[in-house]
Amino acid sequence: MTDLADLADVGRDLRRGGYSRHGFDRVELELREWFTEEARRRGLDVRPDRNGNLWAWWGAPGPGAVVTGSHLDSVPGGGAFDGPLGVVSALQAVDLLRAGGFEPAKPLAIVVFVEEEGGRFGVACLGSRLMTGAITPEAAARLTDADGVTFGEAAHAAGFDPLRMGRDEPALAHVGAFVELHVEQGRGLDVPVGLASSILAHGRWRYTFTGEGNHAGATLMEDRRDPMLPAAQLVVAARRAARDGARATVGRIAPNPGGTNVIASSVDVWLDARADDEPHTREVVERITSAARRAAADEGCEVRVAEESWGGTVLFDPALMADVRRAIGEDTPALPTGAGHDAGILAAHVPTAMLFVRNPTGVSHAPAEFAEADDCAAGVAALAATLEHLASAGDAR
Amino acid sequence: MTDLADLADVGRDLRRGGYSRHGFDRVELELREWFTEEARRRGLDVRPDRNGNLWAWWGAPGPGAVVTGSHLDSVPGGGAFDGPLGVVSALQAVDLLRAGGFEPAKPLAIVVFVEEEGGRFGVACLGSRLMTGAITPEAAARLTDADGVTFGEAAHAAGFDPLRMGRDEPALAHVGAFVELHVEQGRGLDVPVGLASSILAHGRWRYTFTGEGNHAGATLMEDRRDPMLPAAQLVVAARRAARDGARATVGRIAPNPGGTNVIASSVDVWLDARADDEPHTREVVERITSAARRAAADEGCEVRVAEESWGGTVLFDPALMADVRRAIGEDTPALPTGAGHDAGILAAHVPTAMLFVRNPTGVSHAPAEFAEADDCAAGVAALAATLEHLASAGDAR
Repeated sequence: MTDLADLADVGRDLRRGGYSRHGFDRVELELREWFTEEARRRGLDVRPDRNGNLWAWWGAPGPGAVVTGSHLDSVPGGGAFDGPLGVVSALQAVDLLRAGGFEPAKPLAIVVFVEEEGGRFGVACLGSRLMTGAITPEAAARLTDADGVTFGEAAHAAGFDPLRMGRDEPALAHVGAFVELHVEQGRGLDVPVGLASSILAHGRWRYTFTGEGNHAGATLMEDRRDPMLPAAQLVVAARRAARDGARATVGRIAPNPGGTNVIASSVDVWLDARADDEPHTREVVERITSAARRAAADEGCEVRVAEESWGGTVLFDPALMADVRRAIGEDTPALPTGAGHDAGILAAHVPTAMLFVRNPTGVSHAPAEFAEADDCAAGVAALAATLEHLASAGDAR
Repeated sequence: MTDLADLADVGRDLRRGGYSRHGFDRVELELREWFTEEARRRGLDVRPDRNGNLWAWWGAPGPGAVVTGSHLDSVPGGGAFDGPLGVVSALQAVDLLRAGGFEPAKPLAIVVFVEEEGGRFGVACLGSRLMTGAITPEAAARLTDADGVTFGEAAHAAGFDPLRMGRDEPALAHVGAFVELHVEQGRGLDVPVGLASSILAHGRWRYTFTGEGNHAGATLMEDRRDPMLPAAQLVVAARRAARDGARATVGRIAPNPGGTNVIASSVDVWLDARADDEPHTREVVERITSAARRAAADEGCEVRVAEESWGGTVLFDPALMADVRRAIGEDTPALPTGAGHDAGILAAHVPTAMLFVRNPTGVSHAPAEFAEADDCAAGVAALAATLEHLASAGDAR
C-alpha cells in the first residue's frame, strides 16, 4: 500500500536532521516522479499545469471538479508530514473510494503544488500563487535561491516555460471545491481529525543592513559600522513586538561575508510575522521596522526593507465546511491556524476547506514533527468521506 | 614582472565581492601552483613541508636561514593584499637582490603558510600552528569546513599525509630569523613602511545555543524556546563588553535549519575577541559568556561554549627589530596590531619581526582593502634591504 514510509529515505538532510525537499530540486523532482507513477498506477491521468503544479485526474478534467492535495516540498530540515501527508492521504482516499465501488459523478483530482514552503525561493505557496495570479510570473521568475539560481532557471530545467506561467483561468474554473488535508501544526486539536476555520494574516520581510566590512582585530570598536548589531537588535525587537496572539520570528540570518574574523559588510535578516488580521500584522512589523531603523542609525548603518510575501487573513468557506461536517460528523471541531497553506491562497478564488490531522506534540517544521498512524488513518477516512460526499450526484456544487 | 595583478582573477567571490581563497581549496591550490612556478623560474628550490606549507630556498636549506613569506588564502570575501602582498613582495625582493648582484652568505627562503585566516577550517594560522606544535595534528585533522570535509581529508586530497603532520623540529631549527611583510590593517601607519611591535592576545569561541525547532506561525510566543534570542543577545553583549581597547566581534552566525518560517532548533555563533593581554581578553569573553548563559536560561535554551583557538600577546623580537631598523632606517615606526599573523605564532620559537605597508583607509578583510603602489614598492625595497642585511656574512645571527 502507498504510505508515507515510501518516502522515508527521499531527501533526508544529514546535516540539519529531517528532510530538505525544495521546489524543482533533485529531491522534489524525484518525489514528483513517485507521485506520477503512483497516480498512473491507479489509472489517474497525470498532467502538469503551466505553473509547475501536478494534477492527477479521476475522470475528465472539467468544471465542478472536487480537488484535494497538498505539496511535497519541505522547509530546510523539516518533518515527514507537512505536505506529503496530504498527498499520500489523497492517494489512499482514492483507493478507499475505489474499494468501496464509488463512481464519482464529478471529476475528482489530486493536485501537488510546487514550492509551498518557499524554502528555496523565499515566497511561500509559489505554485498556488502563480496559478491564482497572486504573484506575477515575472516576479516569480526573478526569485533566486541561495546559490543564485532563479526560479525561472529552475523551472526551465524542470521542463516548464517561465514565460508561460501565471494566472491559470481554465484550471481555476475547473475547481468546484478544494479540500486540503494537512497535519495540524500546533497543539490545538484533541481529536484525530478537525477542520481549519481560518489562517492568520502573514508575511515575510527581508531586512538588509549595510555597514562597513573590516578586520575584526585591527578595527577599533569606536570606528565600526557593524551591521550585525542592528540585525541582533531586530531579533530582540521582534520578540517584544509579538503580542496579543501575534507571532514574529527570525529563523534565517545571513551575514556577508560571514567570516569569524571579519566585521560583516552587510547582514540579511528574514522576518516572518503573523497576526489575526492585516492591521495587527502591519502594526507588529511597523514596530519591528522602527526599532531596526533606530538601531541601524545608531550604528551608522543603512537598512533596506523588502516585503517578500504577504497574505491576508483567510476565512474558510462556511458552506463547504458545513458540507464536510455532513460527510465526517457534525461535531468535527474547527480551529484557526498560524500556518500558511496553498488552501489559503485558493480560498480567495474557489470554495476551500482544510482537514487537520492531530499533532500530539505541536511540533512542526522540525524533524520531530509527528502524527499517530491511527490519526492518519482517520484522516484518510475523513478525506474519502468528504470526497465521496462532494463528488456524488446529489451534491449541488 | 611578478605582481599582485597576476592574481587578480584567481578566486574572485562574485557573491560576496572580493576574494574567497581557502586552505587546500581549488583556488588556493591554483595559487600554490603559481607560487611554485614563480619560485622555480627564479631557480629557487620549492619543497612543501609535512604540514602543507611551501618553502622556496635560495641556497641549501640549513641552520641560520633568513626566512620571509606570508600566506595566499583569504577570509571569505577578503581583499587582494592580506597575505599575497607578503608573498609577491618576497619574490620581488629576491629579484631586487639578484639584480643588485647580492650573494647571500646564509640560506634564504620564502615560505607560504597554509590556511592562515582559518576561513575554511576555523583555526587561524593553521599551517604555522602545526609546524610549531601549537595545535596537535589530531586536533587539526578533525577540523571540518562548512561542507563537513575535514582538514585531514582536504590535506590528503592535496597530497599531504595528515598522520605525518605536527611539530617540525628540523624546519624550525633552520630558521635563524623570520620577517613577514604584510599590509597594515588599521590606520596606524602614516609613512609607507613600519614595523610591528606586538599583536593583541586573541581567540575564537563558538557558542552553540539549542532550543526547540518549530513552526514560525503555529507556535505561540509563550511556548517558544528560540535559540535565536540568546544568540542575538550575545551580539549585543559582545559590543558592551569590548572596552578599554578590547575588541569583540560576531561576524558569523548560523541558525539551523535556517528557514524563514522555522523557529531554529539551534544557532551557532562565533565570537572573535582580542585585548592587550590574556587576563583582559579572558575577562571580556567571560562577560559575554555570562550574558549568553543568562539569555539562554531566560529562553529555556542550552548553550555550549567551545574555544576554537587561542593566542597570547606577542611581542616581536627587540634585537631583530633593531637589526631591521639598521637596514631600513632607524626612524622606522613600530606599531601594535590587533590582527593575528603566522609571524605571531613563529615568534614564540624563532626571532621574528614584521614589516607593515601603509593602509590608507584602514579597511582590511574586505574587498575595499588597499595599499598604494608606491607604498608596496617601498615595502619591497625595505624587505630586500632587510634580507640583504640579515643574510650578509657580517650579520652575527
